[in-house]
Amino acid sequence: MTDVPAAKPLGPLAGLVVVDMSQMLAAPLSAMLLADFGATVIKVEPPQGDSSRRAGWTIDGTSAWWRLFGRNKYSVTLDLKQAKARAVMLRLLDDADVLIENMRPGKLEQLGLGPEVLHARNPGLVLLRVTGWGQTGPYKDKPAFGTQAEAMSGFAHGNGYPDSPPTLPTFPLADTVTGYLGAYAVMTALWHRDHSAEKRGQVVDLSLFESLFGFLGPQAAIFDRLGLVYEREGNRSPVSVPRGIYHTRDDRWVAISCATEPVVQRAFTAMGRPELFRDPRYSTRAARRERIDEVDALMQEWIGRHDLADVMEKFGAADATVAPVNTIREILQDEHFIARGLVTDAPAADSAPVKMHDVFPRLSETPGSVRWSGRPLGADNDLWLGQKLGLSRAEIDELRRDQAI
Amino acid sequence: MTDVPAAKPLGPLAGLVVVDMSQMLAAPLSAMLLADFGATVIKVEPPQGDSSRRAGWTIDGTSAWWRLFGRNKYSVTLDLKQAKARAVMLRLLDDADVLIENMRPGKLEQLGLGPEVLHARNPGLVLLRVTGWGQTGPYKDKPAFGTQAEAMSGFAHGNGYPDSPPTLPTFPLADTVTGYLGAYAVMTALWHRDHSAEKRGQVVDLSLFESLFGFLGPQAAIFDRLGLVYEREGNRSPVSVPRGIYHTRDDRWVAISCATEPVVQRAFTAMGRPELFRDPRYSTRAARRERIDEVDALMQEWIGRHDLADVMEKFGAADATVAPVNTIREILQDEHFIARGLVTDAPAADSAPVKMHDVFPRLSETPGSVRWSGRPLGADNDLWLGQKLGLSRAEIDELRRDQAI
Repeated sequence: MTDVPAAKPLGPLAGLVVVDMSQMLAAPLSAMLLADFGATVIKVEPPQGDSSRRAGWTIDGTSAWWRLFGRNKYSVTLDLKQAKARAVMLRLLDDADVLIENMRPGKLEQLGLGPEVLHARNPGLVLLRVTGWGQTGPYKDKPAFGTQAEAMSGFAHGNGYPDSPPTLPTFPLADTVTGYLGAYAVMTALWHRDHSAEKRGQVVDLSLFESLFGFLGPQAAIFDRLGLVYEREGNRSPVSVPRGIYHTRDDRWVAISCATEPVVQRAFTAMGRPELFRDPRYSTRAARRERIDEVDALMQEWIGRHDLADVMEKFGAADATVAPVNTIREILQDEHFIARGLVTDAPAADSAPVKMHDVFPRLSETPGSVRWSGRPLGADNDLWLGQKLGLSRAEIDELRRDQAI
Repeated sequence: MTDVPAAKPLGPLAGLVVVDMSQMLAAPLSAMLLADFGATVIKVEPPQGDSSRRAGWTIDGTSAWWRLFGRNKYSVTLDLKQAKARAVMLRLLDDADVLIENMRPGKLEQLGLGPEVLHARNPGLVLLRVTGWGQTGPYKDKPAFGTQAEAMSGFAHGNGYPDSPPTLPTFPLADTVTGYLGAYAVMTALWHRDHSAEKRGQVVDLSLFESLFGFLGPQAAIFDRLGLVYEREGNRSPVSVPRGIYHTRDDRWVAISCATEPVVQRAFTAMGRPELFRDPRYSTRAARRERIDEVDALMQEWIGRHDLADVMEKFGAADATVAPVNTIREILQDEHFIARGLVTDAPAADSAPVKMHDVFPRLSETPGSVRWSGRPLGADNDLWLGQKLGLSRAEIDELRRDQAI
């Protein structure tokens, strides 16, 4: 196993420098997205490491989440409670375009690393500050995890079945959407900086709750004007009727969604029942929603008499939308996903190559790339403190002796 | 009701020009995010309108989704099957930074608007091309809706309960995550363009499936190295134990997530049972997961004896993470969200102001803004074709007579 970071950062963001001092999971995902597209991302962790290194399933002793979200980043340790580590941090930030942090509001300032201090040294710095509830308001000091945003945003109330409890997602939805939005917001602030005369950075106040709330669509308008809330209705949807997951004869599940009227017509045709679409009981979305139990029973009856491959073939021939319910097992064997290079092998310094999704979307001229998996803790201290910042061997040894790195 | 677009686009992307010819729902969301942050976005629709104008719940005859995703955009109609409309489109694109489209692969080329044609006229143009399956590969010509990506990505298999069918989300998850990723990717391509000597744009190949697959985390590594797939387990989580939604004495639901060991300790303390954290049956995540039925029963038993307000107060005092399961009804009354200005009123030309989430995240110096709700079809034809492109009244009348606009 070789130490991996020799690959030159390529991609559209080559040249952008990001210091990521955030942990678990939203803000580190923003930093990962920037790294994926070629930014140089220096992950600064306390000497005990980002807690996401220990979250969930582990591969060779390190979290699978860390191996993914740490990809393409350098790992540098700094104990920011020590003045000498903070001095190193300030020097790293002098040459950075972006700082990403997710401490509770005010903590960065307590460390002497608040926006005023940083902008006095580096006016172009963009600070992405990620919290549960935002930098202001009555809840700003409350602890927060994604689950709370998922519960409080309306997501959980609307997910699951009418007779089940509200249902949380199995993956960290609030964190991932926040991570995506954060990467975008950073780029907008950089665009402004680079296209303005003053070339100034600014502070981006990103909250888990607001990110997820915005992600869920027009809840506010629908409630305000129609008095409706998002309710649990299993696999049904008010937009697409029928929409469901049905059980096939060979014990598989298949998803069907009829979001437009031509698709409804094609689905009925695929089932050998084109006349249904001319029947006023089924010829409009409103009529079908009125009789949704009946429509779902009709779909299930036909699908239950056919194998998955047969359903796929008949719906495919009618150009109707249909999909098998996959797990990762089926995905990895699918000819289309193989042809697209969906999954790639990320070299790791402390494990065999780790399979993970490649960088999406694909850019025709400057595609992103997976250069390495999440690094061992502090693996790049010598590179960044020594070669890049120019600290002497003795200075680095002293930092190490004082457990400042 | 006044016609609204007089507000000057402010925000970090002021000056950026985007032509959005996409429909329903992912790609228009990318365009909305760009518009939210100040880009000038010209939505080009066929004369019959984007089909999302008719999707789902309607407010004064127009979809709530359209009123949200169309916000801050201008509406121009062009029948691109007609040569004279295509000529107008080419002129719009000559001055644009970004084109957003989501036809099936090859269709843009068939219209004579492929990347070669457009880059010959405007080398700096960034093309965001959104499809279900990508521009290449065996599935590229298949129809696609978000539901299919949700079924095929592993999301549905892992969402819901062990004894329920795989469960789709109630909101268009695949579309929204793709929309977010698209906005980010556009910004990376623009950053590259503006920081390179050649100032060239490129094509961004964004698929619903890949966007959602990447969003779901380290599925590939966990399967490849541990042989595990994401399974449905209701509100439980392998990362956070316990994690659940429990029923209170006053018939509300409350979400609790113990993602780190200190939080477990605080939760047991809040319940007046600090000794549990010292009990080897409960003192590690692995041990608790082993006895998860017992742990969940213990949580439910205590919570079932307390009202929601009481649970919130006791967990809050212990600094443990807790959250009520809200609908939009509770959200709109919450003092924190009111203080943050979560929801704003978007002026509409054809309705009373429409409530919708404000622009997130908040930028300290150049915040985004909601200037207007989705516009009536073709409301800005005169502005863009006349004032901006300089077509004469007679030319516009001719386009209208030929139903080219």
